[in-house]
Amino acid sequence: MLFKVEMIVAIPLGFDPAEAARLKAEEKARFQELQAAGTWRHIWRVVGQYANVSIFDVASNAELHDLLISLPLYPFMTVTVTALCRHPSSAHDDDR
Amino acid sequence: MLFKVEMIVAIPLGFDPAEAARLKAEEKARFQELQAAGTWRHIWRVVGQYANVSIFDVASNAELHDLLISLPLYPFMTVTVTALCRHPSSAHDDDR
Amino acid sequence: MLFKVEMIVAIPLGFDPAEAARLKAEEKARFQELQAAGTWRHIWRVVGQYANVSIFDVASNAELHDLLISLPLYPFMTVTVTALCRHPSSAHDDDR
Amino acid sequence: MLFKVEMIVAIPLGFDPAEAARLKAEEKARFQELQAAGTWRHIWRVVGQYANVSIFDVASNAELHDLLISLPLYPFMTVTVTALCRHPSSAHDDDR
Amino acid sequence: MLFKVEMIVAIPLGFDPAEAARLKAEEKARFQELQAAGTWRHIWRVVGQYANVSIFDVASNAELHDLLISLPLYPFMTVTVTALCRHPSSAHDDDR
Amino acid sequence: MLFKVEMIVAIPLGFDPAEAARLKAEEKARFQELQAAGTWRHIWRVVGQYANVSIFDVASNAELHDLLISLPLYPFMTVTVTALCRHPSSAHDDDR
Amino acid sequence: MLFKVEMIVAIPLGFDPAEAARLKAEEKARFQELQAAGTWRHIWRVVGQYANVSIFDVASNAELHDLLISLPLYPFMTVTVTALCRHPSSAHDDDR
Amino acid sequence: MLFKVEMIVAIPLGFDPAEAARLKAEEKARFQELQAAGTWRHIWRVVGQYANVSIFDVASNAELHDLLISLPLYPFMTVTVTALCRHPSSAHDDDR
Amino acid sequence: MLFKVEMIVAIPLGFDPAEAARLKAEEKARFQELQAAGTWRHIWRVVGQYANVSIFDVASNAELHDLLISLPLYPFMTVTVTALCRHPSSAHDDDR
Amino acid sequence: MLFKVEMIVAIPLGFDPAEAARLKAEEKARFQELQAAGTWRHIWRVVGQYANVSIFDVASNAELHDLLISLPLYPFMTVTVTALCRHPSSAHDDDR
Repeated sequence: MLFKVEMIVAIPLGFDPAEAARLKAEEKARFQELQAAGTWRHIWRVVGQYANVSIFDVASNAELHDLLISLPLYPFMTVTVTALCRHPSSAHDDDR
Repeated sequence: MLFKVEMIVAIPLGFDPAEAARLKAEEKARFQELQAAGTWRHIWRVVGQYANVSIFDVASNAELHDLLISLPLYPFMTVTVTALCRHPSSAHDDDR
Repeated sequence: MLFKVEMIVAIPLGFDPAEAARLKAEEKARFQELQAAGTWRHIWRVVGQYANVSIFDVASNAELHDLLISLPLYPFMTVTVTALCRHPSSAHDDDR
Repeated sequence: MLFKVEMIVAIPLGFDPAEAARLKAEEKARFQELQAAGTWRHIWRVVGQYANVSIFDVASNAELHDLLISLPLYPFMTVTVTALCRHPSSAHDDDR
Repeated sequence: MLFKVEMIVAIPLGFDPAEAARLKAEEKARFQELQAAGTWRHIWRVVGQYANVSIFDVASNAELHDLLISLPLYPFMTVTVTALCRHPSSAHDDDR
Repeated sequence: MLFKVEMIVAIPLGFDPAEAARLKAEEKARFQELQAAGTWRHIWRVVGQYANVSIFDVASNAELHDLLISLPLYPFMTVTVTALCRHPSSAHDDDR
Repeated sequence: MLFKVEMIVAIPLGFDPAEAARLKAEEKARFQELQAAGTWRHIWRVVGQYANVSIFDVASNAELHDLLISLPLYPFMTVTVTALCRHPSSAHDDDR
Repeated sequence: MLFKVEMIVAIPLGFDPAEAARLKAEEKARFQELQAAGTWRHIWRVVGQYANVSIFDVASNAELHDLLISLPLYPFMTVTVTALCRHPSSAHDDDR
Repeated sequence: MLFKVEMIVAIPLGFDPAEAARLKAEEKARFQELQAAGTWRHIWRVVGQYANVSIFDVASNAELHDLLISLPLYPFMTVTVTALCRHPSSAHDDDR
Repeated sequence: MLFKVEMIVAIPLGFDPAEAARLKAEEKARFQELQAAGTWRHIWRVVGQYANVSIFDVASNAELHDLLISLPLYPFMTVTVTALCRHPSSAHDDDR
């Protein structure tokens, strides 16, 4: 089941750079684990922003919620969730 | 080069149903042509809306503009374009 | 899987009253069928508005989409969909 | 008498974690007391947010106000209140 | 139980003036009946607008809903409802 | 001359509680003085908010401005002012 | 007593040009009458818009309301009213 | 050449009162200098706000920019600039 | 003196195509005249929209206003005007 | 390939002035390098704001993203990116 998730990240100006770097490394590792599992199906940077557009493929709303709120950078994120479904015109298997 | 395009379609209540059906068929044919060409890379329905979230892969801004304004349903659409780029964390070739 | 759906209904001033009455009767019948099936779990009127707040329980995003766009009054609705999940504090079985 | 209440919770980044945990435990206890009393009739998490959608059943506007502003996490909440009433189509006793 | 209700009235330019006059007369009669009953406790014009700010005193949300949607000018109104309650500082009996 | 004034009060989380209590007591005293004088004609709490809806009766715009900016809690308020006037349908002397 | 009034005028595309010209002439005559009386103290065009920024000097809210709703072009206007008062720094008699 | 400039001033709660008083005195002196020169043609307080509506008469956009950003309170201001021009109906020399 | 002007064009669905084509041809001719004169200094299409971003170089606010409201497609435009001035860092003569 | 980029800069009130001056000097140097390269094709100040409107000419979305996020003042900026393309009416080579 697909969801578009848009994440805007805002780390405060005075935040400890070493702690920020540690959180970003954890975020990247978590992302790659979820990408490998097929759950975080797509991610793109938004040009000019510290933000991304992502497509998640999950078994339930609850799975998506648990996944998002446990992201290392979640406390710095503004998150927008949009439920998606297959488009009737698509011939592309991956857009399920 | 990737762009997220969100399209909301609003055909007026009294619009001729036969003409609407003809335009939708043309739109579907045009979509499938562009999907086959790899230009309209992804499309998903937004749940509960006559709207979609799409990812386009084009050579230039001008190509995207010409493509969008020539869609058969364009006169009925509200279109939002967001420039995207590869996310540094992605290991997924397709997210270029 | 739960979703909050908010529907605002706006039938144009000059719309044929008999046709409106027919669509409302169809909408009510469809609603009661879905309520009996447990899919349209809750519905409440918003005070002072021709609008409702509803809770749907569906197996997938796609089921919710198909259900909403086939409602008899859908062409007159502005629909907002919010994905929900069980709250960890709830002791109420029905809030799954 | 029913009200939809939407609560968004935002605890500042530097807030003392022990104090936050204490307030959350108090909030949960207060919630369960009100849920058992039938006043806080429903609660759901909003996916991807530290937020909930709730349905309250109270005797008066004043009862709802006193209840909300005395919640342990109230100082961290953005609260939106919408007055609801029974939908004429509903056959469900609980949606009164 | 008190509610602030703000009503903006927009009668389309081409609407039949005689029908508009008839609806306004009905609205005024209905208003005065509800004012005499103490239900429509206050009404003020918003300067420069065809709009009012009103205070209603009703026994329940449902009473307010039924009252508002049956106003003769309701089909032309945008209505905003805000639940109010007595302010602790007020020494004024009427502000209950 | 009547004005609707809506006041939202936001005292920062870390603000000294004793100073806050002193300001609130001053605010209440000032309010009751103005209520007794007939200037602050009505006040109601907005349910679920630290906010009020008030009706002022003043001789001029300048009187209202001086009165509002000298309120003890003014530095914590977001204030919205709307000019009102008597509604032609009202039979209620107080709604002048 | 001073008010800033911003007026945006939108005459529908198909509106009878002769009737529009007649209403604009009436509006101009009414404006000049009120300007001569000192009531409509200032008017300026907003660059690129069919809109103006005006300053009114009236004895009461009610006078302003009656004046605005009786303007010949009022049915085509979106009007925003802001209560003003003398600025303490001004040495300019006219800014009372 | 005329511009409407709206300025909202927000000095943080904990800001040093002596420094604030010094900046306000400088601002007033600068304002009176520009008023005497005919550049800051009008200023009015917005009722209930620490804000003003002003009319500037300058030779160019650049003159207005330099003037605004060098105001002593500029770092605390939210500024909105609207280009104005003479209204064709005005018989008032000053509204040029 | 420079201004950014953003124009969104919306010709109604049922508008006579021949008349639309005539207005667009007139608009293009007028644009090229103004471009040749150096007044309409730049124009770009906004990707995916029937809209443009333009830079005008005019002697006064009034010149810009007269120019904009006399454009053949003006009745179909939503226009936003922003006053610009030379950036202190620019070494580019044309950005005056 | 052209993009309009609007940048609003907000340096916090208490930020170290020497560090701010150093960052502004770096920003200016970086700007002039990109202007000389033809990448940052235009820049203008927005009157009354610490903000600019810029036109970038880049080979790809990714080039624009890397360029923007590495600007010395980027951490203080709110950035809005709009994809542009050549306008069919333009006879101006530079508006490609």
